[in-house]
Amino acid sequence: MTDLQSGGGPVGALPFIYGHVDPALFPAEGLREAAALALARHHHSALNYGSSLGCSSLRALLRAKLERDEGLKLGEDELMLTAGASAGLDTAVRVFTRPGDTVLVEAPTYHEALGIIRDYPVKLAAVSLDDDGLVVDALSERLELLVGAGERPALLYTIPCFQNPSGATMSEGRRRALLQLAYRHRLRIVEDDVYRDLYFAGPPPPSLQALDSEGMVIRLGSFSKILAPGLRLGWAVGSAGSIGRLAECGLTTSGGGANPFVAYVVAAFCEQGWLEPHIDRLRQTYRERRDVLLAALAACMPSGTGRKPAWTKPGGGFFVWLTLPPALKARAVLKEAEGRDVTFLPGEPFYAEGGGEQQIRLPFSYIDRPDLERGVEIIADIVARMLPG
Amino acid sequence: MTDLQSGGGPVGALPFIYGHVDPALFPAEGLREAAALALARHHHSALNYGSSLGCSSLRALLRAKLERDEGLKLGEDELMLTAGASAGLDTAVRVFTRPGDTVLVEAPTYHEALGIIRDYPVKLAAVSLDDDGLVVDALSERLELLVGAGERPALLYTIPCFQNPSGATMSEGRRRALLQLAYRHRLRIVEDDVYRDLYFAGPPPPSLQALDSEGMVIRLGSFSKILAPGLRLGWAVGSAGSIGRLAECGLTTSGGGANPFVAYVVAAFCEQGWLEPHIDRLRQTYRERRDVLLAALAACMPSGTGRKPAWTKPGGGFFVWLTLPPALKARAVLKEAEGRDVTFLPGEPFYAEGGGEQQIRLPFSYIDRPDLERGVEIIADIVARMLPG
Repeated sequence: MTDLQSGGGPVGALPFIYGHVDPALFPAEGLREAAALALARHHHSALNYGSSLGCSSLRALLRAKLERDEGLKLGEDELMLTAGASAGLDTAVRVFTRPGDTVLVEAPTYHEALGIIRDYPVKLAAVSLDDDGLVVDALSERLELLVGAGERPALLYTIPCFQNPSGATMSEGRRRALLQLAYRHRLRIVEDDVYRDLYFAGPPPPSLQALDSEGMVIRLGSFSKILAPGLRLGWAVGSAGSIGRLAECGLTTSGGGANPFVAYVVAAFCEQGWLEPHIDRLRQTYRERRDVLLAALAACMPSGTGRKPAWTKPGGGFFVWLTLPPALKARAVLKEAEGRDVTFLPGEPFYAEGGGEQQIRLPFSYIDRPDLERGVEIIADIVARMLPG
Repeated sequence: MTDLQSGGGPVGALPFIYGHVDPALFPAEGLREAAALALARHHHSALNYGSSLGCSSLRALLRAKLERDEGLKLGEDELMLTAGASAGLDTAVRVFTRPGDTVLVEAPTYHEALGIIRDYPVKLAAVSLDDDGLVVDALSERLELLVGAGERPALLYTIPCFQNPSGATMSEGRRRALLQLAYRHRLRIVEDDVYRDLYFAGPPPPSLQALDSEGMVIRLGSFSKILAPGLRLGWAVGSAGSIGRLAECGLTTSGGGANPFVAYVVAAFCEQGWLEPHIDRLRQTYRERRDVLLAALAACMPSGTGRKPAWTKPGGGFFVWLTLPPALKARAVLKEAEGRDVTFLPGEPFYAEGGGEQQIRLPFSYIDRPDLERGVEIIADIVARMLPG
């Protein structure tokens, strides 16, 4: 995220580097009205410390949304607000790990999550991913190895829907198998579910948290992808016991819950009935952009054995994950691309234990049709020129 | 903070328990206008991820304020925004301690800070306080003992101005002696300076950070005391090196700086020239309330040897710290007081290593004149009745 603003403006004319919402899609006018409503009606609460679980009207709205969308009936103490999904992950690592524990992640995974976990005195272990999400058999083997070596695997961080960076979604079968494995190993799961609402065909499989019968999953949601990241507001869902552990941590207690002012603004926005139509618009916009990106890749990328890159076809979210032909490295392509004002993230930062030399993350969320097409044309041209023979 | 809202309303009719701003003093109308301005002028930036240091216009305003108020000239990379002083302390503990390190605190100190530090795998050691603040000789002895025992004292957390809960302010001599001691031991200092602006007679001595020539101090400020705590916004000042360490932590990088939306709202509020007049009003209001509280204590508390409680006379901030006569315990007084609808915090939670059985924290920030007077009358009546013979 830092690269976005430290220089004052976007990096590169065609910044495939940004895996986030296009600012042109922020509902600024609605949020302005919501802020005025919140401060007119609730300024004593909105400007004060709040309960550790966060603004109760927004929590009620979120529980109602989860019941409507997924048939989930949550108790009052099974959902709390967070200062974004990042803060939820941060608190979970603080509360649920001890020094020396191992935290498992997907390979690849969200690189900023790796940064958060690395700030704690824990070890990282990465488990591979395929088109159906985390490979549960590989996780099982890794857990056996870790336990055999005297390690304590404490937590798994997974992004089962429209994963960042791969776009992969974990199948329902994998989800059920993962939970059984987690129960056997008493492995807590942090489920980063921030892209769930942004599906293009139909809703994704039930969340791990919804399938969890033993209180081992904490599921993180966020307004960053469906409203605006500058709000720094998200939520966590789990058993009353595990939500209580997050809510009772020193920082949450001291601060008085996550961002009360923002929470009241977002509650006012939702109470006006503006959230669902906004999400509908985002789904349509991002679906169109995904289609543009996939069509451009199909049209422009070189073909032929050993020459054609592979790419994922996500059913939602923000990301296509491209694998270069064997002869090419992503960093070499990036170097050429930067010379032509196109930037993207090569695969390495997304791997906790190495890998990703041939991968490129291509977000379709941040830039619009003509730039998506021109960016792909340039990358495809570079790939074609760099291929031997 | 949790007690404030979990039950829906303030605890007790005379809640001396709340050590924070009276909601009647929130500048709600100004913040509403500021939110409208920020979203009209800067919605692309205000709603997006920002740089790790936070909204640059607000940082510039804060640097200008520090130069005007204290003659401090700070470089751009010597001040960053935080999600409140609590979040600043939390990040400092994460970044500057290793498992097993010792964190030194004052006895007494802000109890919520103890909660934050206790979430990390560190040890706590408490050093006594008197009317001139932290007793530096006692700190020196404790450091020698710790080092002799093979411990690693990594960090000191201190509140040198109008301390929570004691109201004490560290003298300039103590500040200079503390810095020399810290340099000898390579002890980092987190200076919680959130009450600095709320002085009643004249400004307090220079901050430790302003006196620091070796980059060992990180000073935390907050809009919680001078605007509204529900904003969750503060700042940290220090050497470029230590601010960089805080800014580069995983959570800050991932979230894109502290609360961008709120930061733009507060920047708009400040740009209108509304902050300083608001702080002036707060100073006047809190000075009046302190005077009311001190006059009520003088008028109502029992007198005579062995019967008269002692209390501090703070030059600013929110708190008077009362010490009961030898025969009485604060918890026994509290039990009686609750029966008469008066609540307060007894001293124990403010001590990391025991103590405080005879202390009572009396904030004068949250409740107004008649309630301050009636509350003190009730507590004084209970104390008088409970005293032997």
